[in-house]
Amino acid sequence: MASVDKSIHSAASGVAAETAAKHSKPASNGLVFYSGWFCPFVARVWIALEEKGIDYEYREINPYKKEAHFLAINPKGLVPAVEHDGAAMYESLVLLEYLEETFPSTAPLFPSKNTARAHVRMHIDQVVKKIMPSFYKTLQAQQEEEQKEARKTLTAAFKEYAEAFPNSSKPFHGGDKPDAVDVALAPWACRLFLLEEHRGGPFQAAEVGEAFIKWRKAIQDWPSVKAVLSTPEKYTEVYQRYLNDEAMSEAAKATRSGGVIP
Amino acid sequence: MASVDKSIHSAASGVAAETAAKHSKPASNGLVFYSGWFCPFVARVWIALEEKGIDYEYREINPYKKEAHFLAINPKGLVPAVEHDGAAMYESLVLLEYLEETFPSTAPLFPSKNTARAHVRMHIDQVVKKIMPSFYKTLQAQQEEEQKEARKTLTAAFKEYAEAFPNSSKPFHGGDKPDAVDVALAPWACRLFLLEEHRGGPFQAAEVGEAFIKWRKAIQDWPSVKAVLSTPEKYTEVYQRYLNDEAMSEAAKATRSGGVIP
Repeated sequence: MASVDKSIHSAASGVAAETAAKHSKPASNGLVFYSGWFCPFVARVWIALEEKGIDYEYREINPYKKEAHFLAINPKGLVPAVEHDGAAMYESLVLLEYLEETFPSTAPLFPSKNTARAHVRMHIDQVVKKIMPSFYKTLQAQQEEEQKEARKTLTAAFKEYAEAFPNSSKPFHGGDKPDAVDVALAPWACRLFLLEEHRGGPFQAAEVGEAFIKWRKAIQDWPSVKAVLSTPEKYTEVYQRYLNDEAMSEAAKATRSGGVIP
Repeated sequence: MASVDKSIHSAASGVAAETAAKHSKPASNGLVFYSGWFCPFVARVWIALEEKGIDYEYREINPYKKEAHFLAINPKGLVPAVEHDGAAMYESLVLLEYLEETFPSTAPLFPSKNTARAHVRMHIDQVVKKIMPSFYKTLQAQQEEEQKEARKTLTAAFKEYAEAFPNSSKPFHGGDKPDAVDVALAPWACRLFLLEEHRGGPFQAAEVGEAFIKWRKAIQDWPSVKAVLSTPEKYTEVYQRYLNDEAMSEAAKATRSGGVIP
């Protein structure tokens, strides 16, 4: 995503608050992680940091008052951002690649074979192009017919996502452990309850397929995914603006105007 | 992009035809490159193959009659596609990464330092999100006011693209030679004459900035970029459908419906 919304409670809660507190001090490797607790694009990177056991300093960006240093290294004020090795970097998927290349020894999120890595990137590309736009459309659509149509596209994309896993006997794209394909969608899996409550009820196997049902349960139970989750009420509070189509995040605005989700 | 248009002349012409002819035989490394001569997304990969001096077999995909083997390995019939090392792969940017990783020794398109590689990917992300949508909007818009508006967004993005190069005394993002940032936009530079002829005249420095003017000239003169170019009349023929907003490629349809360019 891009800049955080202008009117959001600016601290993580629940397990995410505990995780952030553990990383409140400067890290041994100098890595600084600029976060917005509610943002799913941020969560991709946060999960990767936790999963790979990388040392990092957590800094919650207050959208009302962005610190001068943050704006100096990142003039657009984007989160997620990572400052490391003398450079400021952003864009969640770019950061996943960077973390993998820079900390290759722990919990690989990308396979070592080049052709398999290409397939991981192709799969992520489908998350970006097929799942993201229909997720936000379902969330922000105000007319019932439009909501139904968007949900249909979304659930078809969920089905395709999970049924394309290389090993159907395993829960994750990565097999028994999540890889970058799983991490790229994990934060939205944790926000699906909002669509279930407000956009047509539970996602059933008939709609999304058995493989997706299995994946969703497994990814929500995965330790590094749970570690970055705030309490459900806080998400409900933030996403109410999306449900009313009043959110001002870049993803929300892009969805409203028919543009590209940044 | 995705599937080629349904009504396109199915052979390269000019220099591109000569380049294709040089690669009509099976390659020593077994690499097969599935192409559509007019497609700019294809051209990204073709330029990379030429720039890196990789051996490849060129196969033009006839959109009217896709061969059975091609559809078996790539059910959606997407070009560009590469078959190599027992795998079928597609998506132009995924293929650039694959070619770099698999053939690292010649003409690197990505820098070796991790932070610099992240910056290359961030820059390409801006090509995808800012330049591509406004290029197709400018091309396909039918009302003059809408064309002007789209061109304004496009030229601002061009300016930003070139002014963000790390070394302003060099023509390319990569310095004296193109890197992946340059290759990611090169095919559209070669198609800008269409916008100049039909969407408001020449791009001047006042509109796109001196850096972009310099880049455009340098990239159009670069050998590997020229090597994959068909004759201008053939592009004009294909793009007439875009100018009339009648094109049926995935990029054209996405632009028309306000969706994501695949």
